Amino acid sequence: MSVLSSEFPVINALKKPTSDAWVEQAISNLDIILLDHSQCERKAAGSALNLMFRYPSNAKMVRELTKIAKEELEHFEQVNQWLDRRNIPLRHLTPPPYGAALKANLRPQEPNRFLDALLASGLIEARSHERLGLLATHCPEPELAKFYRGLMASEARHFGTFWVLADTYFDREVVMERLDELAEIESELLVNLYPEPRIHS
Amino acid sequence: MSVLSSEFPVINALKKPTSDAWVEQAISNLDIILLDHSQCERKAAGSALNLMFRYPSNAKMVRELTKIAKEELEHFEQVNQWLDRRNIPLRHLTPPPYGAALKANLRPQEPNRFLDALLASGLIEARSHERLGLLATHCPEPELAKFYRGLMASEARHFGTFWVLADTYFDREVVMERLDELAEIESELLVNLYPEPRIHS
Ligand SMILES: [Fe+2]
Ligand SMILES: [Fe+2]
Ligand SMILES: [Fe+2]
Ligand SMILES: [Fe+2]
Repeated sequence: MSVLSSEFPVINALKKPTSDAWVEQAISNLDIILLDHSQCERKAAGSALNLMFRYPSNAKMVRELTKIAKEELEHFEQVNQWLDRRNIPLRHLTPPPYGAALKANLRPQEPNRFLDALLASGLIEARSHERLGLLATHCPEPELAKFYRGLMASEARHFGTFWVLADTYFDREVVMERLDELAEIESELLVNLYPEPRIHS
Repeated sequence: MSVLSSEFPVINALKKPTSDAWVEQAISNLDIILLDHSQCERKAAGSALNLMFRYPSNAKMVRELTKIAKEELEHFEQVNQWLDRRNIPLRHLTPPPYGAALKANLRPQEPNRFLDALLASGLIEARSHERLGLLATHCPEPELAKFYRGLMASEARHFGTFWVLADTYFDREVVMERLDELAEIESELLVNLYPEPRIHS
């Protein structure tokens, strides 16, 4: 059982909660976590744009993902302002294997690929939501904790958007079953803590 | 000499003005031009993000391109609302050779590649600014003409941002000389009108 739980409710699509080890790693490395978080927000915007490039005629998806991309760019700006305030220069960090490993599990044939991409994006949002909640709960700096708390709501909403989009373009039963499978994979990827502090280590 | 000139001043980095043939092609195909314009705005956002991915530690560039990416997504939304109003469904259009041909002229070695990418982006903004001005001048639908007029200011500002960024990271003399070379190439690419109506045909 986890000792370092979050004071916030967790999106129930996630199969396993984040370990205490991640919380300890993150809280002892807040500067690196902020730097990695900046990259996550930029990547979230990029991946929304990639989906629009790949499926340019899915009007509802394009409309929703444009909103998400704009919000992720806002988050990116906000995290970068935090970096600035703490005198942390922007620099590239090697990403943890999480994102690429999740992507490796997407089925290559359409329409499966489209469904899997929506659900994987949704799961990343759900996990970010959970981990921002843990940071908000355990971060010893009240201002920064408040910032994390502020971001949580949009990440939960983003999970909801990806779920609704999957449900728009696919049968609900198919969506539920595949979400379940991908959620198992997602949780397994996080069982062994990545040695470097990252949002998705 | 061009008969169908614009009532707006043109960014003087451009070596040759757009031909009357382009204006005629565009004005006779306003729906396709809107659809292609939507893709251009999405691509502009994507290419700002790509630059941030490639040069993540150039803080000033990251700050400025985040703003540009957000604005391009706003434009994308606005063009898509125009498509909606005119009942034009979103769909993929084959792009004209312009973008890829310009990209093929970027020097592959750093730091040249970075300079060339900034300048090519700036030239595309300058050309978009000129062509939106032509659309604003010659579009027979007053509401749509007004929309094009409204977008022009940001595209001119975007050209300015790319110029300032090039000037920040490189010596002015080097920037001027290379801008001149790339501008020659850019204008040459548009001498033969692409047979399909496009913003950059
Ligand atoms: Fe975000
Ligand atoms: Fe998000
Ligand atoms: Fe634009
Ligand atoms: Fe622009």
